[in-house]
Amino acid sequence: MADLGSGLVKRILVIGAAGMIGRKLVARLAAQGGAELIQHDVVPFEGASAVSDLSTPGEAEKLIAARPELIFHLAAVVSGEAEADFEKGYRVNLDGTRQLFEAIRLAGEGYRPKVVFTSSIAVFGAPFPDAIGDEFLNAPLTSYGTQKAIGELLLSDYSRRGFFDGIGIRLPTICVRPGKPNKAASGFFSGILREPLAGQEAVLPVPETVRHWFASPRAAIGFLLHAAALDTRRLGDRRNLSMPGLSATVGEQIEALRGVAGEKAARLIRREPDPAIMRIVEGWPRNFDARRALELGFRADASFDDIIRFHLEDEAQKKSASPLPARA
Amino acid sequence: MADLGSGLVKRILVIGAAGMIGRKLVARLAAQGGAELIQHDVVPFEGASAVSDLSTPGEAEKLIAARPELIFHLAAVVSGEAEADFEKGYRVNLDGTRQLFEAIRLAGEGYRPKVVFTSSIAVFGAPFPDAIGDEFLNAPLTSYGTQKAIGELLLSDYSRRGFFDGIGIRLPTICVRPGKPNKAASGFFSGILREPLAGQEAVLPVPETVRHWFASPRAAIGFLLHAAALDTRRLGDRRNLSMPGLSATVGEQIEALRGVAGEKAARLIRREPDPAIMRIVEGWPRNFDARRALELGFRADASFDDIIRFHLEDEAQKKSASPLPARA
Repeated sequence: MADLGSGLVKRILVIGAAGMIGRKLVARLAAQGGAELIQHDVVPFEGASAVSDLSTPGEAEKLIAARPELIFHLAAVVSGEAEADFEKGYRVNLDGTRQLFEAIRLAGEGYRPKVVFTSSIAVFGAPFPDAIGDEFLNAPLTSYGTQKAIGELLLSDYSRRGFFDGIGIRLPTICVRPGKPNKAASGFFSGILREPLAGQEAVLPVPETVRHWFASPRAAIGFLLHAAALDTRRLGDRRNLSMPGLSATVGEQIEALRGVAGEKAARLIRREPDPAIMRIVEGWPRNFDARRALELGFRADASFDDIIRFHLEDEAQKKSASPLPARA
Repeated sequence: MADLGSGLVKRILVIGAAGMIGRKLVARLAAQGGAELIQHDVVPFEGASAVSDLSTPGEAEKLIAARPELIFHLAAVVSGEAEADFEKGYRVNLDGTRQLFEAIRLAGEGYRPKVVFTSSIAVFGAPFPDAIGDEFLNAPLTSYGTQKAIGELLLSDYSRRGFFDGIGIRLPTICVRPGKPNKAASGFFSGILREPLAGQEAVLPVPETVRHWFASPRAAIGFLLHAAALDTRRLGDRRNLSMPGLSATVGEQIEALRGVAGEKAARLIRREPDPAIMRIVEGWPRNFDARRALELGFRADASFDDIIRFHLEDEAQKKSASPLPARA
């Protein structure tokens, strides 16, 4: 067990530290203090301890040279890119993960770190039950989901064999994702909140009846820290967990936006139906029964109002340009 | 669709042709005629077209050089060995499979063979429902099961991307397995029938109440041929199927033995409880709801009497030493 407060964790390795979740996690760990942070990503970034491609032979060995007691493995080629570039997706998401796991196994000398792996609800593929439970088949419909499902299987087997102490957490779609709009098919779920909150227009490509599964960045960081501190003996041999989230329709998202930021903000959403995006979104999970994670103490956001307020609070610190005040 | 009777399949590659299932499949394909057989295994055997380690870079490319329209991938390091030798299991069962799939992908020029992959009920791990359905989680409890589950995920993704036309079939425990007793923990399920049928004593290490999931070698060959001929458009994106089998207790096995070969044969079973084997067997699946495979036309054995009679018929041809006549 990696008790972050106990002083037993002297070094923490964050792989994928330059990503949105990585940066927020590092900020939180740095604020807590008490452990040396080793920050890694494939792109150069402020605070980097190492910049390299995890899938290049030998790189994983270097990253664990200081024998970090706790490792967060967040690095991945995202869904759209893994679909567009088959070889890159398998190289980074499968081979990179396997090389990290192999480096730990081969380190020997009793080295047995805690490994927190971010998986995804993309390990599931339609058709779904009304709420996806903890025993539902992993039948991904993307190469990204396939690579994450394989990472989960490896994590379980390496943990069962005693090579490390792993836990995989399947994150809901993160909302509100800060920063610029991106071209991910899921981008509009954040865009229809983030842009109007900043006084900008946003495009909604699907009907308001579309339902999806969400967590705020703040909840996601909470999942990671809770996973790191969790006694994995409570998991048994099933080391991968669907995280609790908030199941909401686009209409409910907009209602929350209206409640927090007023009708003027809601009017900035422009409906532009896009059949291509609708087809992709139809294959995505809508709702989960995350009973196991809840029993293990993982906590979802309480409401979409909270998700929007957390966004305003967390992002307002960084840029004062936000035209709307945060309500606590 | 690989219609074996249509003449469209000119070459058939069997990987793992020296194994028990491989030999029976090759014999059946040879009897059907009409296609050139390319037989491969890692050990030398009579009739071999090629002997090599599939996981050695470059070997998979050589195997598909003649562009077989149909490939049976049966090769695997078995459960016990994959557990005892971690690196060998991953090298052969994961890397070997992936290199075959990659060789096909990279062949290009419109090459898109049908690939029939033998998976295993070891992709499932306890705790189980009463009958394991088609949407139950793959949570293996062995490295072998992990490697088969990863093979299934790769098969689905490569098929979805159009690199080949794959189907994975999860075989029940094969019974009666011909030949000498082996040291597999599951060996007694065949041993308690095969040895008494040959007038020999057999050891039963578990109580008669133990329930398991069985198919005869003849049923298994039937699954492979049906999978090869199946129009995979009927599968959608879920390319892996639990095969139908016979759920039976050890007591029911013995009752069938008594019915076919008499009380004298049944008395050759010596009870020698083995807590170590019992612990392993407790983690194994007992029963399935193989609705999907049944709807797709896969057929299980009708009874354990049949399983025993098939054994006597099929093995009597090879050695006249069998003291008990086959009943048709």
